[in-house]
This record gives sequence, structure tokens and C-alpha cells, in this order.
Amino acid sequence: MKIGVLGTGVVGRTISSRLIELGHEVKMGSRSANNEAARNWVSANGENASNGTFGDAAAFADSLVFNCTKGEYSISVLSLAGEYNMEDKVLVDISNPLDFSRGMPPRLSICNDDSLAEQIQEAFPSVRVVKTLNTMNCNIMLNPERVSGDHNVFLSGNDVSAKADVIDLLKSAGWKVSNIIDLGDITTARGTEMLLPVWIRLWSALGTTDFNFHIAR
Amino acid sequence: MKIGVLGTGVVGRTISSRLIELGHEVKMGSRSANNEAARNWVSANGENASNGTFGDAAAFADSLVFNCTKGEYSISVLSLAGEYNMEDKVLVDISNPLDFSRGMPPRLSICNDDSLAEQIQEAFPSVRVVKTLNTMNCNIMLNPERVSGDHNVFLSGNDVSAKADVIDLLKSAGWKVSNIIDLGDITTARGTEMLLPVWIRLWSALGTTDFNFHIAR
Repeated sequence: MKIGVLGTGVVGRTISSRLIELGHEVKMGSRSANNEAARNWVSANGENASNGTFGDAAAFADSLVFNCTKGEYSISVLSLAGEYNMEDKVLVDISNPLDFSRGMPPRLSICNDDSLAEQIQEAFPSVRVVKTLNTMNCNIMLNPERVSGDHNVFLSGNDVSAKADVIDLLKSAGWKVSNIIDLGDITTARGTEMLLPVWIRLWSALGTTDFNFHIAR
Repeated sequence: MKIGVLGTGVVGRTISSRLIELGHEVKMGSRSANNEAARNWVSANGENASNGTFGDAAAFADSLVFNCTKGEYSISVLSLAGEYNMEDKVLVDISNPLDFSRGMPPRLSICNDDSLAEQIQEAFPSVRVVKTLNTMNCNIMLNPERVSGDHNVFLSGNDVSAKADVIDLLKSAGWKVSNIIDLGDITTARGTEMLLPVWIRLWSALGTTDFNFHIAR
């Protein structure tokens, strides 16, 4: 598949490299087509790797666009990417509304009665938003074997076929179907985004980011 | 031990009955010493069971008092119980700041930069508050074998010896030490209280309350 990845930070680069490993063509998007991190990433990742503007990356995608931007910039980046470049495509939203402006630990800039995923879906109604993967470190997202035993990935979204497409990708990355939990519509993203505060405290308590939530039953 | 339990709802009754099973003497507290649910519970639970006012239950405790009230009433109930009746005692706070006033699913009345546990600790500074057990159904809290495999209970509190006392009780109830995670001071309760929104969505998605969070690593 041709997949667009928005964001050149550690999350965007980790996701992009793993998508290349899985056999996809990836165009990494940033504000400038000349972004140094993106150019370095392209150099290191072979012929299936390319980069361009946010709009270039969104237009490149057959169907899947990953939002790997920081939550505070997500709406503005998606505006730059252009809703017309993502119409009917699936936006895999792995961002979190973390606000570091008051120091550590970060607070959430949106929570409780709203979520970043809902704000994105509302701002770009023709895009099919699926919130997922935001509850774990980026090294685990498309490489679940990194954490031993069963653990879970959650899905939130209004479009059932969009979630099915994301499930197919997750399966190809190593996720067992029984460990993928569809929570329901996009409002359920409130719950997964609100996992971040305890995730951050667990990072401190455990001294590692190599952990993930598992729902034991 | 003599343990006080504040609250006569399903959480208070479930915790109280299990504490009796574990060999403790329990006094269940409510607004009136004549509370029908409490009297029925006493009738069904033998000579180690008693009831009284919130103040009676708090005063009865050697060391441990369980807050099993609804979050919206916790501060007022603890005021009725009387800080002088809980001075230097350990308040095991298992309440959650759920607000059902706008319908289902509930929102949180406190979150992000604050938590109910912090408000309780601030309101009653001579009481040693330990937030724990609030992230699972009450049938699992002191009966972890109800969910198979490993799963976790979290602790938040400013007083290390208070947390040690709670850990002793949790171990006696069947919790493996390796499954007890001390997140840190009372501010870490923000994270565990903010688990409730996804807990509620998981309840819907899974169709059962017999599940718990496990941190896979």
C-alpha cells in the first residue's frame, strides 16, 4: 500500500520505518518538503521511502494516512494536509492532547467531555478517523512482540469499514485479533486519551516504556 | 483488625463482607445508625459485623478506614465521620469522581490537574490517604483470583508506611506482591481516576465487569 505519514518526530519516523519493513511505500510529510529529518529518514530507508509536504503525503496515500503529530499541532497540520487530499481516506490518529506548558507531568489540553479525536473528526468530516495505538510507546505500536504475553490495542471510530482496514494493518504488524478491542464510536477515544496520565506515571514507576495495557479477563 | 467501612452501597457491602471473610471485625458506617442496608448486612455477617454512624465506623477502626462512598459525597461523608476519628489512621480511598448528572456514560467531576484523592488529602491533612482499588469492579478488589492470570492494583499516597499497611491487607486478600504497583504520591491518583472513562467503555465493549487492567511488560 501507499501510506502517508504526517510528522517527522520519533513517532513518525518509527511508524514509517516499520511500515517500510512491512512492505509498504511511505511518504513522510512535514511543513517543508525540504525537512532535514524527513530527508535523512528517506536516505536510510530505501526506494519505498519518500517525503514531501503534509499535502503531498496525504495525497500520496491510497487509503491510510497516519497522524503522528503532537496533539497541540494536529488540527493545524491536518488543515495544511488538506481535507480534499484525505477525502474518504482513513486517518489513523495516534496523537495525544498532551500539554507540557506547565511542566512535567503533562496535563491534557482536552479531556473528559471531549477528545482530540472527536475534534479532528468534527473538523474534517469527510475523513474517516480511527483513533488507535495512542496508548503505548511508538516502538510497540506496529511491533507488539516487543512486549511479551498478551496486551491490547484499542480502536475508536464512527466508520466500521475504516476500523476493519486498520485491523487488517494491525494484524499484518503482528497483533493477534483477540488483542484488538473495538471500543465503539469516536467518543470512546476520550477514554484512551485519558489513559495517558497513568501511562506517564507508570513510565516513572517502572523505569521503562516497554509496557502496555492488557485487559485481563 | 478492627476496620471501619464508610458506605452501605454495593461497594461498601462487598468490601465489608470480604473483610469479614478475611477474619477482620468490621463496622459499617452510614448517615444513620439505623440504616436498613447496614442492619441487613450485619444480620447476614455474624458476630464480627456491626454498624453505626460514619463517626462510629471511623472511631472503631484500629488503623484502616475504607472510603466506599460515591465520589460526589466523599468529602461531606468524611466530614461527618470526623477527622478527629481518623487522625493518623489510613484512609483507603476507593471512590471515583463519577458524575452521572448528564447521563451515561458519566463524566468525571474532577480530573486532569486535580483528583478526588488529592481533595480528600487536602481537606483532612491528619489522615493518611491511600488511593487504591478504584480501577476495578468491587467483586475483584479484595478477591483478585476472580480474574485469571496476572493483573494489577495501583497505589497512590504521600505516606510510605500507610501504603505498606495497605499492601499487607492486599496480600492477605490474595494479591501477589508483583502485581501491586506503587505509582507514587497522592497526585498520581489523577491517573488512576482517569482510567474510569475507558473502564466504562470496556464494560460496554466486553459485556462484563469481570476484567482488570494488567500492565504487560
